Amino acid sequence: MKKFEEKTIKSERIYNGKIVQLQVDEVKLPDGKTSKREIIKHPGAVAVIALTPERKIVFVEQYRKPLEKSIIEIPAGKLDPGENPLAAALRELEEETGYTANSLSFVTSFYSSPGFADELLHIYITDDLRKVENPKSGDEDEFVEIIELTLDEAKQYVEEERIHDAKTAYAVLYLHALEGR
Amino acid sequence: MKKFEEKTIKSERIYNGKIVQLQVDEVKLPDGKTSKREIIKHPGAVAVIALTPERKIVFVEQYRKPLEKSIIEIPAGKLDPGENPLAAALRELEEETGYTANSLSFVTSFYSSPGFADELLHIYITDDLRKVENPKSGDEDEFVEIIELTLDEAKQYVEEERIHDAKTAYAVLYLHALEGR
Repeated sequence: MKKFEEKTIKSERIYNGKIVQLQVDEVKLPDGKTSKREIIKHPGAVAVIALTPERKIVFVEQYRKPLEKSIIEIPAGKLDPGENPLAAALRELEEETGYTANSLSFVTSFYSSPGFADELLHIYITDDLRKVENPKSGDEDEFVEIIELTLDEAKQYVEEERIHDAKTAYAVLYLHALEGR
Repeated sequence: MKKFEEKTIKSERIYNGKIVQLQVDEVKLPDGKTSKREIIKHPGAVAVIALTPERKIVFVEQYRKPLEKSIIEIPAGKLDPGENPLAAALRELEEETGYTANSLSFVTSFYSSPGFADELLHIYITDDLRKVENPKSGDEDEFVEIIELTLDEAKQYVEEERIHDAKTAYAVLYLHALEGR
């Protein structure tokens, strides 16, 4: 859909980082006026709702520098260039948790923050986990701790804001809705 | 929580925009090595799940330049400096939809994308809407169209990816879970 399309008059690349790029576009608005749009380019990401045979949910706790605190999230990571999201989900699951899955089902995808970023997140679910003997390790600068919680414990962590990000809030609500059936 | 804390060695401000700031921090990791963190600073945002007397959900369609397409979202907007989130939710509801609410209840809050951004989003809900005669208008460079949908229609739009962002996906799932009770 192109309703209210904003045509690009000029695009300036401000920063090329390891994770994000920042560009500022000058756009022509539907009423003919012009404005500026600050745009974060991101390669996209994947996340996995992983359930153990005991129906515990697998989370990772990690320090998030933008927040200056650690929070508890479902396993996730960004796509490598050209990487298939399902393959990325399987890779991140193993790197972050030491689990692999015999099957992974697509749940949904959404843009994290479409007002200023193009990051698209793909969420998968599995209850078919298997411990890997010598799991691949993840990024050298990533330190995570695995935490397995029941759904009730996870809901408590949402209340306490130890779980406090979009994908994990969605995951907990998704499992809550599933259970309600 | 400060587990795996990353201490700042150096912080460089790359860009100061109207919506976002970009800074790059050099950090000391838990193992003593150093790394860089690209951080988007954002003022935070609010969103409203607004239900009409006919139990339709109020959405807005708008062009999202980072995605180069228009999508359908629940009414939302960023916080003004120092603004109370509840007041911001009421303001954005009126500016974007022409509705005000006699009461607004807090649903949850979450970080949109904690890997690279500090944006915290606060979600509210109301089924106590009232049309405003001369509603305040929003930002000059914002063009939105109001769309009222039943929950089933909204779920269909999620399938079709016309609803495709985190807060709105959360809102649709939240109403689905509520209805299941």
